[in-house]
Amino acid sequence: MSEIGQVIVGELIGTFLLILLGNGVVANVMLKGTKGNNSGWIVLSVGWGFAVTIAGLLSSISQAHLNPAVTIGFLIGGKTAAFVGGNFAYAPIYIIVQFLGAMIGQLFVYLAYFKEYHNTEKPDDILFTFATIPANRNFIWNTITEILATFVLMMIMFGTLVIKNLMKDSGISGLNNFTTPLMVGIGVMVIGLGLGGPTGFAINPARDLGPRIMHAILPLKHKGSSDWKYAPVPVVGPLLGASIAAALVQVIAVL
Amino acid sequence: MSEIGQVIVGELIGTFLLILLGNGVVANVMLKGTKGNNSGWIVLSVGWGFAVTIAGLLSSISQAHLNPAVTIGFLIGGKTAAFVGGNFAYAPIYIIVQFLGAMIGQLFVYLAYFKEYHNTEKPDDILFTFATIPANRNFIWNTITEILATFVLMMIMFGTLVIKNLMKDSGISGLNNFTTPLMVGIGVMVIGLGLGGPTGFAINPARDLGPRIMHAILPLKHKGSSDWKYAPVPVVGPLLGASIAAALVQVIAVL
Amino acid sequence: MSEIGQVIVGELIGTFLLILLGNGVVANVMLKGTKGNNSGWIVLSVGWGFAVTIAGLLSSISQAHLNPAVTIGFLIGGKTAAFVGGNFAYAPIYIIVQFLGAMIGQLFVYLAYFKEYHNTEKPDDILFTFATIPANRNFIWNTITEILATFVLMMIMFGTLVIKNLMKDSGISGLNNFTTPLMVGIGVMVIGLGLGGPTGFAINPARDLGPRIMHAILPLKHKGSSDWKYAPVPVVGPLLGASIAAALVQVIAVL
Amino acid sequence: MSEIGQVIVGELIGTFLLILLGNGVVANVMLKGTKGNNSGWIVLSVGWGFAVTIAGLLSSISQAHLNPAVTIGFLIGGKTAAFVGGNFAYAPIYIIVQFLGAMIGQLFVYLAYFKEYHNTEKPDDILFTFATIPANRNFIWNTITEILATFVLMMIMFGTLVIKNLMKDSGISGLNNFTTPLMVGIGVMVIGLGLGGPTGFAINPARDLGPRIMHAILPLKHKGSSDWKYAPVPVVGPLLGASIAAALVQVIAVL
Repeated sequence: MSEIGQVIVGELIGTFLLILLGNGVVANVMLKGTKGNNSGWIVLSVGWGFAVTIAGLLSSISQAHLNPAVTIGFLIGGKTAAFVGGNFAYAPIYIIVQFLGAMIGQLFVYLAYFKEYHNTEKPDDILFTFATIPANRNFIWNTITEILATFVLMMIMFGTLVIKNLMKDSGISGLNNFTTPLMVGIGVMVIGLGLGGPTGFAINPARDLGPRIMHAILPLKHKGSSDWKYAPVPVVGPLLGASIAAALVQVIAVL
Repeated sequence: MSEIGQVIVGELIGTFLLILLGNGVVANVMLKGTKGNNSGWIVLSVGWGFAVTIAGLLSSISQAHLNPAVTIGFLIGGKTAAFVGGNFAYAPIYIIVQFLGAMIGQLFVYLAYFKEYHNTEKPDDILFTFATIPANRNFIWNTITEILATFVLMMIMFGTLVIKNLMKDSGISGLNNFTTPLMVGIGVMVIGLGLGGPTGFAINPARDLGPRIMHAILPLKHKGSSDWKYAPVPVVGPLLGASIAAALVQVIAVL
Repeated sequence: MSEIGQVIVGELIGTFLLILLGNGVVANVMLKGTKGNNSGWIVLSVGWGFAVTIAGLLSSISQAHLNPAVTIGFLIGGKTAAFVGGNFAYAPIYIIVQFLGAMIGQLFVYLAYFKEYHNTEKPDDILFTFATIPANRNFIWNTITEILATFVLMMIMFGTLVIKNLMKDSGISGLNNFTTPLMVGIGVMVIGLGLGGPTGFAINPARDLGPRIMHAILPLKHKGSSDWKYAPVPVVGPLLGASIAAALVQVIAVL
Repeated sequence: MSEIGQVIVGELIGTFLLILLGNGVVANVMLKGTKGNNSGWIVLSVGWGFAVTIAGLLSSISQAHLNPAVTIGFLIGGKTAAFVGGNFAYAPIYIIVQFLGAMIGQLFVYLAYFKEYHNTEKPDDILFTFATIPANRNFIWNTITEILATFVLMMIMFGTLVIKNLMKDSGISGLNNFTTPLMVGIGVMVIGLGLGGPTGFAINPARDLGPRIMHAILPLKHKGSSDWKYAPVPVVGPLLGASIAAALVQVIAVL
C-alpha cells in the first residue's frame, strides 16, 4: 500500500473505532434503558481509555495519531518518526481523515443505539453522547482544563515513541503494537479519572467537533441545541496543550 | 497430539472456561443473595472481558477461536495461519466443539450457583445468566448492534494475528500466549462497555445458543421461557459482523 | 541462598503480602468507617486479583506457589520445573511456610485496621475479613463451587508455566517475573468475579484456615464464632479442584 | 543532558504528573458538581495507581523515584543501580525536586478544578484533594498503617529493579520503561485498595506535605485548617516503612 494509503486506512479505521467504542460507552451510560445505564465515571473512564487502546492497536499502520492535536504536537515536536514514511507533509491528510473517521464512528454509535436514542428524552443526555459538556461553563477555565489534560496526553505520546524506538533497537518490533496502545489507553483512562471532572476530557478536536457536526445533522427525536458556543473550547484547548508539550520536549532536548 | 486433537482439546477447554467464567459473572450479578449481587455493568464487562483472556490463555493450543463467528471470519479472511496446522478443513470441528464446550461450561455455572439459582425467583434474571436479552426488542436494530460489536471483535482478532506474526519473526514465541489473550480480553471488555448497552453483547453464536439450549434442558425451579424468538439475532448478527470484517481485511490487503 | 532458604523466604514474603493486601481489601470494604467501606464486589475482586500479582512478583525466588492446593497440584501434575531446584521434596516446606505467612499477614491486617476493627460491631463483618463465609451454607454445593474455582486457578498455573518455559527458550528471562504474576492476578480477579458469588472464593487452604486460626487467637472487641463448622470446605474444595486439574493435565499430556 | 539535569527533569516532570493526575482524581471524586463526583474508592485507587504508572513512564530518565521514602529506601538498601549514574550523592537533589514537583502539580490541580473548588463548601472535602485525612485519628495506629503500606511499596520498587536488571541482561532495554511503571502502578492501586482504608495511603512524604503546604498558601473560598497536627504521620510513616523494607532486603541478601 502507498504511504498515503496507509495514513488514510489507519486513521480512518482508528478514529472510527475510537468514537464508536468511546462514545458508545457514553451512550451506554447516558441513554435510557441501556444495560449500562447510570453505571458511573469508572465505566466512562475505563471505557474511553481502552477504546483508545483498541483503536490504536488497529491503526498502527498509520502510527495511530487519531487526534489532530497529536498530529500537530508531533509536527511541532519535530518527530518525523511518528509519521508514515517520516513525512511531515502527510499531516493535513492525517487531520482530515481523523475528522472523517470520527463522524462515521458517531454515525454508527447512532445506529447501534438507535432505539435507545429514540427513548431518551433529555436533550443534554443525548448531546453528551456526541460532544463534551462542561460541569461549570466558563470559557477560560474550561480551556485551561483541556490544555492541561491534552498536555498530559501529548507527553505520553512522546514517551511511548521513545519506548518504541528503544524496542526497535532491541530487535523486537511486534511488541510495539501491543505496549504502545496499552500504555496510551491507560494514560487516557487516568486523564479521564484525574482531569475529566470539569470538562469531560475532550482532549481531541476530532473527537468533539466531528460528532458535534453529526449531532447537528442526524435526526433525533428529542434533540436539543448542538451547543456551538462551547465548540471552540475542545478544539483550542487540545491544540494549545499538545503544542505546549511539544515545545517543552524541544526545550528538554537541548538541555 | 494430533492436529485434530489440538483443535478439540483447545477449543473444548477454552469455550468451557469462557462460559463458566463469563456467565459465572452474570450469575454473580443477577442471582439472589450472591456476593456480587447487583454489582453493575463494570463487573459484567470487566468479568466477561478477562474471562476471554483466561480462556484464550488456556486454549492457545488450538489458537483460541472460541467463537464460530471468529472461525468463519478467519476462513473468509483467508488466514490459514489462524488454524492448527494451517488447515481450513478443521473449521467444522472448531465450531462443533465450541458449542459443546459452551454447553458444558454452562452446566458448571449451574452447578457452581446451584443454591442461588434455586433462590432466584425472576425468570428473566435466570435467563440472562444463560443467554442475552435485548434492552429494547427489535429484530433489525438488535441485529445491527450485534453486527457492529462482532465486527470490532473480528478486527481485533485480525490485529492480534498480525502482532503474533511480527513477534514470531522477532524470535519471541512465548510472549504471544500472553499478549494476544490480554489484548483480546481488553477488546471484549471495551465492546461490552461501549456496544453492550442495547443487546448485552453476545458477539458469539456458541456463547448464546449453547447456553440457551442448556436453559431449555436444565431443571430450574423458577424457569421461564427460553426466548427462542430472539435466538436467531445473536447467531446471525455475529456471523455477519465477522464476515464484514473479513471482507474489509481482504479489500485492504489488495490496496 | 540455599534452595530451602529460597523456598522459605519466597513463600513467607509472598503469602504474607497475599493476605495483608487481599484481606486488607476485605477489611477496607467491610469494616466501619474505612475509606473504602461498602465499595462493592469490583473492589474485592480487583483487589484480591492484583494482591496475587504483587505477592507473586515478590516471591518469584520460590516460584510463587503461595497456596497449598497449587503445591499439591504441581506435585500431582508432575511439574518439577515449578519447584525450587526442581525438587518435589520441598513440598512440605512450601505448605508449612504458606500457612505461617498467611497467619503473619493476617496479624498485620489486624494492626493496619486496628481502630476500624474496634469500631465494627457485626461479628460476621469481622469474620469475613479473616475467612470466607458462604452466601448459602451447604457443605456439598459450597465444596463444588470451591472445586470449580480452584480447578480454574490450577489450570492457569499450568498455563503460565508453559509460557514461562517458552520464554526461557526464547532467551528472555526477566519478562517471566512480569507476565506470570500479571496473568495469574488477572485470573484470580476473574475467578472472583465469575465464581466468587456463592462462597467468596477461598481457592487456597492457607488463605482461609491460616487467618481463621488468627481469628480464634486475636483479641477482638466484637468477635463472634470462628465458624469452624465451615472450615473444612475451603480446605477440601481447593485441594480437590487442584488435583482434578493436575489429573486432567496428565491425561492431556499422553493424548 | 548532565546527570544532575536528568535527575531534575525526570523527578520534576514525574512528581508534577503524579500529583496532577493523582490528586486530580481525588478532586474529581470529592469536589461539588464534577463529572466523577462521589464515584467511590475504585475510582480513587485505580486513578492513583495508574497516575503512578504514567508519572513513572515519563520520568524514566531519572529512574522514577517520585517519592522521598523511595529515594531513602534505595539508599539504605544500597541499590546504586537505582540512581542516575549510580551515584548516591544525588539523593538530596531527588528529594528536593520531588517536593517542588508535587507543589507545582498541586497548583495545576487547583487550576484545572478552579470553578469546582469555588463551589465546594465542605473544608474537609477540599483538604482531602490536597493531603490525606485519616478515618480514625490516632498518631500511633495511623503511623503503623502508613509504615505497612510504604513497606509494601518499597518491596515492589526493589522487585521491579530486579526485573529491570534481568531484562537488561536479556538485551531488551525498552521494555523496562513499559513493565516497571505498569507493575508499580498496579502495586499502588492494590495498596490503595488493601491498605488505604484507615489513612488514605499517603505512602509518600512529598505527595502529602508538598500539597499540604500549597493548601496553606493557595486562596480557597471555603478553606479550613491545613491540619498540621496530622502532617508528621504521612512523613514519618513512609520513611520508616521504606527503611524497614530496605533493611529486610539487606538481610535477605546475606542469607
